[in-house]
Amino acid sequence: MSTAIKISVIGAGSAQFSLGLVKDLCLTPGLAGSLVSFMDVDLARLEMIEKLARRYAAELGSDLRFERTADRAASLTDADFVINTASVVSHHHQRAMREVTAKHGYYYGGVAFGNHAQLAFMLAVARDMERICPNAWLIQSGNPVFEGCTLMTRETGIKVCGLCHGHYGVYQVAMTLGLDPQKITWQAPGLNHNIWLTHFLYEGKDAYPLLDRWIAEQSETFWRTHVAQSTHDIQMSRGAIHMYRMYGLMPIGDTPRQQRNWWYHTSLEVKKYWFGEPWGGPDTEIARPFFVEGLEKRIAFMTQLANDPKASLVETFGSEKTREQQVPIIDGLVNNNEYVAQVNIPNHGALPGVADDVVVEVPAIINAKGIQPLRVPPLPRKIMLEMILPEVLDMERELLAFKTGDRSMLLWSVLNSPQTRSYEQAVAVLDDLLAMPGHEELATHFRWPETWE
Amino acid sequence: MSTAIKISVIGAGSAQFSLGLVKDLCLTPGLAGSLVSFMDVDLARLEMIEKLARRYAAELGSDLRFERTADRAASLTDADFVINTASVVSHHHQRAMREVTAKHGYYYGGVAFGNHAQLAFMLAVARDMERICPNAWLIQSGNPVFEGCTLMTRETGIKVCGLCHGHYGVYQVAMTLGLDPQKITWQAPGLNHNIWLTHFLYEGKDAYPLLDRWIAEQSETFWRTHVAQSTHDIQMSRGAIHMYRMYGLMPIGDTPRQQRNWWYHTSLEVKKYWFGEPWGGPDTEIARPFFVEGLEKRIAFMTQLANDPKASLVETFGSEKTREQQVPIIDGLVNNNEYVAQVNIPNHGALPGVADDVVVEVPAIINAKGIQPLRVPPLPRKIMLEMILPEVLDMERELLAFKTGDRSMLLWSVLNSPQTRSYEQAVAVLDDLLAMPGHEELATHFRWPETWE
Repeated sequence: MSTAIKISVIGAGSAQFSLGLVKDLCLTPGLAGSLVSFMDVDLARLEMIEKLARRYAAELGSDLRFERTADRAASLTDADFVINTASVVSHHHQRAMREVTAKHGYYYGGVAFGNHAQLAFMLAVARDMERICPNAWLIQSGNPVFEGCTLMTRETGIKVCGLCHGHYGVYQVAMTLGLDPQKITWQAPGLNHNIWLTHFLYEGKDAYPLLDRWIAEQSETFWRTHVAQSTHDIQMSRGAIHMYRMYGLMPIGDTPRQQRNWWYHTSLEVKKYWFGEPWGGPDTEIARPFFVEGLEKRIAFMTQLANDPKASLVETFGSEKTREQQVPIIDGLVNNNEYVAQVNIPNHGALPGVADDVVVEVPAIINAKGIQPLRVPPLPRKIMLEMILPEVLDMERELLAFKTGDRSMLLWSVLNSPQTRSYEQAVAVLDDLLAMPGHEELATHFRWPETWE
Repeated sequence: MSTAIKISVIGAGSAQFSLGLVKDLCLTPGLAGSLVSFMDVDLARLEMIEKLARRYAAELGSDLRFERTADRAASLTDADFVINTASVVSHHHQRAMREVTAKHGYYYGGVAFGNHAQLAFMLAVARDMERICPNAWLIQSGNPVFEGCTLMTRETGIKVCGLCHGHYGVYQVAMTLGLDPQKITWQAPGLNHNIWLTHFLYEGKDAYPLLDRWIAEQSETFWRTHVAQSTHDIQMSRGAIHMYRMYGLMPIGDTPRQQRNWWYHTSLEVKKYWFGEPWGGPDTEIARPFFVEGLEKRIAFMTQLANDPKASLVETFGSEKTREQQVPIIDGLVNNNEYVAQVNIPNHGALPGVADDVVVEVPAIINAKGIQPLRVPPLPRKIMLEMILPEVLDMERELLAFKTGDRSMLLWSVLNSPQTRSYEQAVAVLDDLLAMPGHEELATHFRWPETWE
C-alpha cells in the first residue's frame, strides 16, 4: 500500500538537498506514485535538478513523478507538503555585508542586523500556502529556523515543522569518545542552534562520565592534533568543551557557534584557539570561502553529470537513505509509519519555561495523528537564563522590528552587538548597511519612529 | 485618635534620612506615642542621630519615644515596621572596586559584578524579621531595591515594600516645561530605576505634546546653557530625551542612568555630552566624589548641631513634611489614612508581562487593608523587550548566582559587560575583584562549578 502525494520543493536549485530528497523518496515504498514539484527562480539549476531526479528515479525503477516551475503558486497548488529550502540572501550578498561592516571596524560580520529579508520571504511562502494549500505541512529546511518558524506559526494558520542537522553532533561526541553510535540514547532539546545534551546514555548508562574522562585524559592531545574534516567540525573543539564547563551541559551541533558567546569569536587567531585548525570553525574569513567553494564544486559536478546521459547516478550517489528527516516525517504523517525526529515546532508546554507560541527544538513522535512533541524535563535554570531566554528575547525583538518597521530597533540591536564601541559607529554602520544595493525594500520598510526628531 | 507603634530603622546612621523620618513622624498625629528604634553598627553616628531626634521632637512638643542599639535583634523585637536603609558596601569600598577595574581597562566601574554583599545583608535582615517580628512590614529604603525586594519576598514570608525617589523626576519634567506640578497627573510604572511615563496629563489633557514642543523649540538651548544643580540633575538631559526617542516614552528619575544603555556612558566626555555639565550625571569620576563630599559635609554639620544644645533644630530643618513616602505609608496601613504611593512590591499581575514573583514599581493604594497595587496598562512591547525583560533576566541571573555561589555565572556577567574586550580580561578582572580586601566571604561563597576543570 502506498499513498501518492504532492511535495513542493521551494528553492529546489539547492542541488544536493533536492537529490537527497529524491533518493529518500525512491527508497520509501509508501510514497510511490508521488509528484515532486521543483520550484526555483534559477531556471538553469531547476532544469539540472529535474534531469538528475528523473534519471535517478528511473535507474532505481521508482514510481515518482516530477515537475518544475518558476511559479510558486503553481508549485503550491494541490501540495500536501511544502519543503522550503530557499535563501534569498546569497553567499555573495552576505560577503558584501561583511565587507561593509569591516569598514566600520567589525570583525567578520559582528553586527546584529537581523534576518529581515529572509523572514519576509518565509512569511510570503506561508501566506501563499494559507491561500493555496492551507492543509499542507510546511517543512522549513532553511534558516533562520527559529525566528522564521515562530513568525510563520504566529502569523498564519499553516502547520509548520522546522528541521536542522545540528542534533547529529551528538553522534560525533559518541564517536570521538570511541562509543558505538548505535548504542547511545540521548536527548538534546532547546531552541534551534541552541540545544543542550540533557540525556546521554551508552548501553543504558550515563555516558557523561566518559565525556569527563575524555576531557581529563585526551582532550588536550585532541586539540593539539585534530585537523577539522569540514569547516563545521567543531563539536569536540576547545570552545565546545569550554561551553560545557560554562553552562553545565554539552552544547550540540551549531550551538558552539553561538555568536552570543562573543568571546570565542573576536579574531581568526582567537577562533582557531577555540575551534581548531585549519579554519577556526565555519564562521571565519577563511572557512566561509572554502565552504562556498565546496558548494560550487558540487553544483559543477552535478551539472556535468546531468549533461552526461551515460553516467550512472546510482553508482555515483549510492542507494542508501540519507540521514535527512524530511521523507521519514512525511511517511510518518501520511502512512502512519511512526518515526521519532528532532523537530522545531511551537512549544505548547514541551520545553518548560518557554512561552507556548515560541518554536522550540524537541524530539517528537510523528504518525498519522500528527507531530507530537515529547515533553522534556526543564533545562537547567542557568542554561535557561544565560542561553535560552536571552535568545527568545532577541527573537522577539527581531520579530517586533520586522513587523513594525521601527528603525530604532535595528539601531538598538547594532548598539548591543558586542563589537560595537560607540554610538556613532552603530549609527554609521546601520546607515551603510541599509544603503547597500539589494536593501532598497528594507530601507523603505524601516523608518525612524515619530518621536525620533 | 492615634496608634503608637514601634519602628525599627536599620542603618539609622544615615543622618539625613533618619532626621527626615523623625520630622514626618512628628508631623503625623496619628502616630503619636510611637517608639523609634535606631539601629546601626556606627555607634558615634547612632548617638548623634538619637540626640538630634530627641531634641527635634522635643522642640515640636511631639510625643515620640526613641531608643538606639547596635543589636539588630533587639531593635527588631516587637517592631511593627522595619525601615532598612543600610548599605554594607561603603563609598570607600566602591571607589576601591572602581580602581581595580580601571587597572583592567574599564571606565568608571563598567563591570557587571552584582550586589552580592548587599543582597546577603538584606536577606539576613529579612530572615531576622521572619524569626523576631514576622508580622512587621519591611520598608526597604536602600538599593538594590529591585533585586533585593524580589529576593526577600521569594525567600521569606515577610511583607516587603521597596521605596525610591526616582519617580519624583516627573515633577522636574513638569517644571522644566513651565507647568504647575500641582496640576499634573501621571503614571510611571516599570521596575525600580527603569520606569516609564505612560500617562502625563496637565489639567486633564495629554501633556506629551507640550514635551514634544519643548524638545523642538527649547531643548538645544537648555542643553547648551543648563548647569546641573546636583549630580543627579539629568531628568531633562540630552540623554534622557534621546532615550525618549529610542523607546517612545519618557524615562523617569534614575532610568536615564541605566548602564544597559552603555553608549551614553563610555567616557567622561561622552557622559557630559549626554548628561550635561559640569558632572556628566551622577556616575562619573568627578560627580561621585562631589556627591560623597556633600554627604560628609552634611554629617559634619549635623554632628556640630548635635553637639550644640542651643541650636534650634526646627529653625534649621523647618517643620514641613518631607516628600518621603515611608511615614504616610505607615500612617495609611496603621490608621487607614488612605494614601497613594509609588512602591516596589511583588507584581501579582499589576504590570502585565512580568512574572508574579518579580518586584515591580507601580502606584498603589495604601490603607488598613494593606498595599494594593494598581493594575496598570501594559507598557509598550518595545520597552518590555528592550528595557524591562532584559533587566528581569539580569536580576534572575544575579539571584541564581547569589543562591548557588556559581563563580562561572559571575564570569558570564563580566564577559557580558559592554566594556569587556576579551575573555582573558574578564577572567583577570574577576580574579582581582574577588581577591580584594573585604571580599573574603564572596570569594569563599563563589566556587567554580564541578565541570570547570
